[in-house]
Amino acid sequence: MAAAGSKFSFEILKKTPDGARRGRLTTPHGTVETPAFFFCGTRGSVKGLCAERLVDCGTQAVLANTYHLHLRPGEDTVALLGGLHAMMGWPGPMLTDSGGFQIFSLGHGGVAQEIKCRRTDGRPKTLLRIDENGALFRSYVDGSFRTLTPESSIRIQKMLGADILLPLDECTPYHADRDYTARSLERSHRWELRSLAEFQKISPDSQALYGIVQGGIYEDLRRISCDFIAGQDFFGQAIGGSLGGDREEMERVVATVGRFLHPLRPTHLLGIGGLRDIFHGVRQGVDTFDCVHPTRMARHGGALVPGSLSEGTGRINLHSGRFARDREPIDASCDCYACRTASRAYLHHLLRSREILGGQLVTIHNVRFMNRLMERIREAIGTNSLDRLEAAYR
Amino acid sequence: MAAAGSKFSFEILKKTPDGARRGRLTTPHGTVETPAFFFCGTRGSVKGLCAERLVDCGTQAVLANTYHLHLRPGEDTVALLGGLHAMMGWPGPMLTDSGGFQIFSLGHGGVAQEIKCRRTDGRPKTLLRIDENGALFRSYVDGSFRTLTPESSIRIQKMLGADILLPLDECTPYHADRDYTARSLERSHRWELRSLAEFQKISPDSQALYGIVQGGIYEDLRRISCDFIAGQDFFGQAIGGSLGGDREEMERVVATVGRFLHPLRPTHLLGIGGLRDIFHGVRQGVDTFDCVHPTRMARHGGALVPGSLSEGTGRINLHSGRFARDREPIDASCDCYACRTASRAYLHHLLRSREILGGQLVTIHNVRFMNRLMERIREAIGTNSLDRLEAAYR
Repeated sequence: MAAAGSKFSFEILKKTPDGARRGRLTTPHGTVETPAFFFCGTRGSVKGLCAERLVDCGTQAVLANTYHLHLRPGEDTVALLGGLHAMMGWPGPMLTDSGGFQIFSLGHGGVAQEIKCRRTDGRPKTLLRIDENGALFRSYVDGSFRTLTPESSIRIQKMLGADILLPLDECTPYHADRDYTARSLERSHRWELRSLAEFQKISPDSQALYGIVQGGIYEDLRRISCDFIAGQDFFGQAIGGSLGGDREEMERVVATVGRFLHPLRPTHLLGIGGLRDIFHGVRQGVDTFDCVHPTRMARHGGALVPGSLSEGTGRINLHSGRFARDREPIDASCDCYACRTASRAYLHHLLRSREILGGQLVTIHNVRFMNRLMERIREAIGTNSLDRLEAAYR
Repeated sequence: MAAAGSKFSFEILKKTPDGARRGRLTTPHGTVETPAFFFCGTRGSVKGLCAERLVDCGTQAVLANTYHLHLRPGEDTVALLGGLHAMMGWPGPMLTDSGGFQIFSLGHGGVAQEIKCRRTDGRPKTLLRIDENGALFRSYVDGSFRTLTPESSIRIQKMLGADILLPLDECTPYHADRDYTARSLERSHRWELRSLAEFQKISPDSQALYGIVQGGIYEDLRRISCDFIAGQDFFGQAIGGSLGGDREEMERVVATVGRFLHPLRPTHLLGIGGLRDIFHGVRQGVDTFDCVHPTRMARHGGALVPGSLSEGTGRINLHSGRFARDREPIDASCDCYACRTASRAYLHHLLRSREILGGQLVTIHNVRFMNRLMERIREAIGTNSLDRLEAAYR
C-alpha cells in the first residue's frame, strides 16, 4: 500500500501481446522506468562502487538488506545519519527486504558464502526458532540473540528509510513438501497482514509496502497466494520463495504467478538476474528484478557480454590466461568507463594481482551492462521486438 | 638527462629565503607544478582508484614500480598495451623506479608487508646475489630466477614508458657501516654511469633519467654522491638510500644533500610522505615526493586531517568506535568526494563491515588531502608563508 495522496504511483505505459509491459514507477526519490534492475547494496554499499559511479552507469534503483543493516550499523545509526539514502549518498529509489531471506537462508546454512570471511566460520546455522510470533536467530556480528517479527521488520525498515519495503515471510527451502509449504504460506499471509497493519499504523507517506507471493513450486498454492496478496492493500507485489530446482520449473512457477498477480500493481521478482530469466520474467509481466549475480560475478572476474562475445555463458572470465595479452576492451560497443579506458589484458593483470581496481572496473561494466540491457528491453517493448533483442544476447 | 630538443624542462619560478622553491616540471604527458606529491601505483593502479578519480582529486603525477610490473604482467605486455599510460588510462606525468628498492628490501625481508597475501609467505628472502653485474633474485610470482642489471632496468623502464626513469642502485640497509656504504656507493655510481650509457643509447626523447644520490647517513659520502651525480648528464636527481633511523637523522641527511645537489635540476625525495617531512624537505629544495603512506593508511581506515581535527598524529582512525555515530564528514573543509557525501559513521560502518568502498572513499580523501597540501605549499612559497601554513597542519 501507499498512503492516500502519496508520492507513489505506478503507470503501465504499454503492454505487448506476449505479456511484457513498459511502466513507470514513481517514488519520493524519483522515477524508475520499467522493466528495471535493482542492484544489491547489501550492507549499504554496492560493493566497490560509489553512488556517483552508480549514477554514471545509468542505475535507477538499489536494494539494501535489512538483516545486515539491522545487525550493523543498526537502524538507529542509519536513522541518525538521515536514513539509507543520505548515509549512502544514493539519490534514487531504493528497496529494502524484510530480513527474512537472510535469516532463513543463513539460518539453514544456505547462502553461507554471503558471510564467509566472517566470524560465523564453522557455525553457519544461526536460525534458532520460527514460531507464530516471528524468528529467533543469533547475530553473526556479536552472537547476541535477536528476534525479528513482522512488526519489528516494518519498524526497522521505516527507520532505514527506503522507498519500497517488504513484509517478513518465511522462505521455505526447495525441499519443503506441499504440506509444509501450505502451512508456511498461511503463516506468511498472517505475517503479511500484521506487516500491513504495522505499516498503516506508522503510515509513512514516503514509503510503500509490497506484498510477497509465496507457495513454492505448487501452482495451486501460488494461485491462493496471488489472490490473497491482490486482495490486500499492498502498493506492489513481489514474487518470493522457492522458484524450483531448475530453469524449467522456475519458468513454470513465474508464468503461473504472472497469470494471477494483480494486473495493475508493480511486480518485483526477488533475487533473479540471469539474462534469460529476465527476458522470461519480463514476458510474464515482471517490472523489476534484483540479484547479486552481476556485481558478485564481477568481483571474481566475470564480465557480462552479449552473445557474440560470450564463452557460451553470457560472460567472459577475465581471470583466464587467454586475456593476458588481449588489447580489446571487455565489449567495444559498451560505453562504460571500464570499456572506454581498460583493456582485457589490464583487467586480467589487475585481477591476477589482486588489485581491487580490477573487481571495481568489471563491476562498473556489469552494472552498465545490466542497465543497458534493461534500456533495450524497454525500447524493444515499445517496438514489439523483444524476441529479436533476446536473440542478440544469446 | 633528457635528449636535446626534448619535451622535458624544469623551471624554478621562485625561491624563498628558507630554501623552498616553486617550480614547473614539464614532461611529454603534461606539467607538474612543484612542490608536488606522486602517488604510488605499484602494480599499475593506485589501489582502489580509477584514473578518472585520481584526476578528479587534483593528482598531478603517479609512480609505478618496475620490479612488480616486470614480474607481472611483464614489460612486453605493458608495451603491447601501449605503455603504462595507456594501460592504466592515466593521462599525466609518471615515474618508474629501477626495481632496485624492491629487490633489496624484499630480498632482505624488509618490506615483506608489500607482498603478504602472496605466495612468498614464509619465504620472504628473494635476493640471491649482488655483484658488479647486478642483482640475482627470485620472482615472487612464479619462483623463476631473474637478473636485474643497470642496463636491463633501463630497457624495462623504456618499455614501461613512464616519463621519468631511475637508474638501478643498491639500497643499503640502515645498519650498513661506513665502509660497506662507501663501497656500495661506488658501485651504485658505476651502475648509474652504465644506466646513463644505456639510456643514451636508446635515447628516447619522450623519457628523462634522474640520478640517485646515495651515501646513507654519512655526510661526507652524501656530498661525494651529490657531486658525482651533479657532474653527470642526468635531467634530475633523486635522494635515495637510508635516511637514518629517526626523524632527526633524516632531517640532517636531507639538509646535507639539499646543500650539495645540482641547484637547477628537479629533485625527488624517494619514499617520504609524512607531513612534517614534506615541509622539511621543501625547505631543503625538494620538488617532488612519493610515498605509499597516504594510500596504504587509507585502506586501513586512517584519514589525514589538519592539526585541529587530528588525534595528535595528523590523522584520525575511522575504525575507532568513537566514530560509530559521528555524522560529520572526515573534514568539513575538504572538497573531496568522500567529504562531500560520506559521514565518518558511514565510513566506520563500511570499514568495520569490510566493504571495499570504505577504503576507497578514505583513499579519495587522503589523495585529495595530499594534493591540497601541496597546492597550499605552492601558494605559501608564493607568499613566503610556509611557517604559518605548517602551523595549521600541526
